[in-house]
Amino acid sequence: MSIESALTIPLGFRTASVKAGIKPSGGLDLALLVSDVPCAAAGTFTTNRICAAPVRWDRPLVPSESIRAIVVNAGNANAATGEQGEKNAAETARVAAAELGCEPSQVLIASTGVIGHQLPMDSLRNGIGRAFGALSAEPADFHQASHAIMTTDTKPKLASSQLVVDGQPITLLGLAKGAAMIGPRMATMLGFLITDARVSAKDLQSILSDAVEASFNCISVEGHTSTNDTVLLLANGASSEKPLQGADLERFAELVHSTCQKLARMIPDDGEGATHLITIDVEGARDREEARTLARAVADSPLVKTAVAGADPNWGRIVSAAGYSGVDFEERELSLWLNGTPLYKDGMPLDFDAQTVSANLRAERETTIRLQFKRGEGAIRFWSCDLTAEYVRLNADYTT
Amino acid sequence: MSIESALTIPLGFRTASVKAGIKPSGGLDLALLVSDVPCAAAGTFTTNRICAAPVRWDRPLVPSESIRAIVVNAGNANAATGEQGEKNAAETARVAAAELGCEPSQVLIASTGVIGHQLPMDSLRNGIGRAFGALSAEPADFHQASHAIMTTDTKPKLASSQLVVDGQPITLLGLAKGAAMIGPRMATMLGFLITDARVSAKDLQSILSDAVEASFNCISVEGHTSTNDTVLLLANGASSEKPLQGADLERFAELVHSTCQKLARMIPDDGEGATHLITIDVEGARDREEARTLARAVADSPLVKTAVAGADPNWGRIVSAAGYSGVDFEERELSLWLNGTPLYKDGMPLDFDAQTVSANLRAERETTIRLQFKRGEGAIRFWSCDLTAEYVRLNADYTT
Repeated sequence: MSIESALTIPLGFRTASVKAGIKPSGGLDLALLVSDVPCAAAGTFTTNRICAAPVRWDRPLVPSESIRAIVVNAGNANAATGEQGEKNAAETARVAAAELGCEPSQVLIASTGVIGHQLPMDSLRNGIGRAFGALSAEPADFHQASHAIMTTDTKPKLASSQLVVDGQPITLLGLAKGAAMIGPRMATMLGFLITDARVSAKDLQSILSDAVEASFNCISVEGHTSTNDTVLLLANGASSEKPLQGADLERFAELVHSTCQKLARMIPDDGEGATHLITIDVEGARDREEARTLARAVADSPLVKTAVAGADPNWGRIVSAAGYSGVDFEERELSLWLNGTPLYKDGMPLDFDAQTVSANLRAERETTIRLQFKRGEGAIRFWSCDLTAEYVRLNADYTT
Repeated sequence: MSIESALTIPLGFRTASVKAGIKPSGGLDLALLVSDVPCAAAGTFTTNRICAAPVRWDRPLVPSESIRAIVVNAGNANAATGEQGEKNAAETARVAAAELGCEPSQVLIASTGVIGHQLPMDSLRNGIGRAFGALSAEPADFHQASHAIMTTDTKPKLASSQLVVDGQPITLLGLAKGAAMIGPRMATMLGFLITDARVSAKDLQSILSDAVEASFNCISVEGHTSTNDTVLLLANGASSEKPLQGADLERFAELVHSTCQKLARMIPDDGEGATHLITIDVEGARDREEARTLARAVADSPLVKTAVAGADPNWGRIVSAAGYSGVDFEERELSLWLNGTPLYKDGMPLDFDAQTVSANLRAERETTIRLQFKRGEGAIRFWSCDLTAEYVRLNADYTT
């Protein structure tokens, strides 16, 4: 079964993708996600102080009960573009709203690509017009949209899942992109989830914020937080007149959570030049934020990432990354496992066969690093990827 | 004039280096720095929670008025080695003290190399004995010591300078090593300064701490703070019976400061695989610590470092790195220059010829990034290096 045929599309949503002429490659670079009716909408955004004009546009609009569409372009981030960039963002929303016969404030936008260049507005306006003429609810077209939002990604990132409430299926579809400038890059992390569930904007925002905290905020490619990171969730209520409540709402929240985790994990797995997906499990920290701080120091260490690339069980790099994280643990509180092999126990090195562990690291696409502390109940699962010469090659010549 | 003949050696100090059999390569791996008389001594050390046994040995001993020697080994960090590692550190000091006829607490030690392996103590004891039989005050032998402390360094790092007080020369000699795990790496940053100035331990510690803050704490290769970072300064008073005071003490402090900066700058310049030394000047931050936070985010960004490697004037990566530093500036407060060319002014992109700036980046060994804010008087100069495929190759296969 191909990815395309496996996708289930929420009721009442349509998409279209076109070659608007923004990417120098001339590939697909503009995608629309349109709901037939106004949606409840939630969003989470980059914390970078240099934040893109589309982020500035969206941020005050969510949560909302009345969003009709998302317009996404790749090939240009519309970040660090000053007032003209803000005007261009507003114009993008206005053009789409005119097509839909709604207010510009009912249109969310997202951009990804190079920083510091103005959007080619004539091309963009023309592309939006063409896209509105091509809207479709076919799975193949949503699959194409997941390609249109890619920059240096090598694989599209899609996930759909269903839940049955009162005999009625509720469908959730997610699309994401990102392969670098993930901490959570200039190529940038974007995620879009659409569902036919009926959920209030307030509940939706709370569910999305919790889900992002344990998914898109637990990944790193190189620790460079993008100017454009955006995750949006639209719920149009097409599956039922009755809003989700109680246990059903919790089941829906779990669906959002698992879908966000699936999509998030695909990002470092497709990290630029990556040959290993690294899962970092931290346990026994004082609290979840402390666990995140420890996991992120390990996830972002170029020395840990190059060791994994080389299938080198150089565990000293892992414990020393935790050591400079800023968390004031004692060495004797720390134990470490690499792909299940114990290497360090209560602050003491253990004997192990380096050749066997290295062979295992080399053979497996996934590397698991488990750090156990004795400070409390704080735990987190975090995903990163290795650092290869290919990452350097890809990034040493991006704009020129 | 060769580096060796240009070195001036402080009165009353001797050195020796031997092949103790710690480095698998069989090269020089043990160096002694010995004073004929007890010295005032100051030290600064890693803040990593996984700190090496030699750091645990030295830390309580400084400042001191009675240090006689420093024993340094390369090839083994004696870090994450538990109680046995601490016993081996103490034994190293004890063996050297027995040779000198002093207390073990009058001997400082430092180690650099792979983490998590016990020191080969028979080889080390034998090496210390041989080194004490070979002490010399010749410049060529101090030059050899700077080689003995190297790990992945490609160049020795030495600087000497003089000051005249009351007609009497005061000499300061510094040795350093480090090429990675610099944030301020496992190969680790070590610095040793010796002088024949007469300065109290209390003044010496204050002078050294200030100098390190503006030198060794302003460099980064990949942001991985080592387990072993150590800078030690010994002053034996051999130049004069009279302790330095007032303006003379300030001139001496300036000498320590400039020597530390010279040595510190050599580390990213010799960063593993580096083809560019990057100087980051931050101005107009609220205070110096805020300037450091901003500079360090830029210095550690793999996307900034790969852009410099590729001579790519991708300035969006620079401003977005500042943007995720945690400092809550506004975009309109920021202006940016790259090798003197203005690229971004008050939050707005400027027109510039990318080919010309790229050609300039490619032609120059040094890249200068200047970030100007409008928040206050806080400023810092920080040094980093670019990230090349060679760094990845060097670090993907270090222990196995």
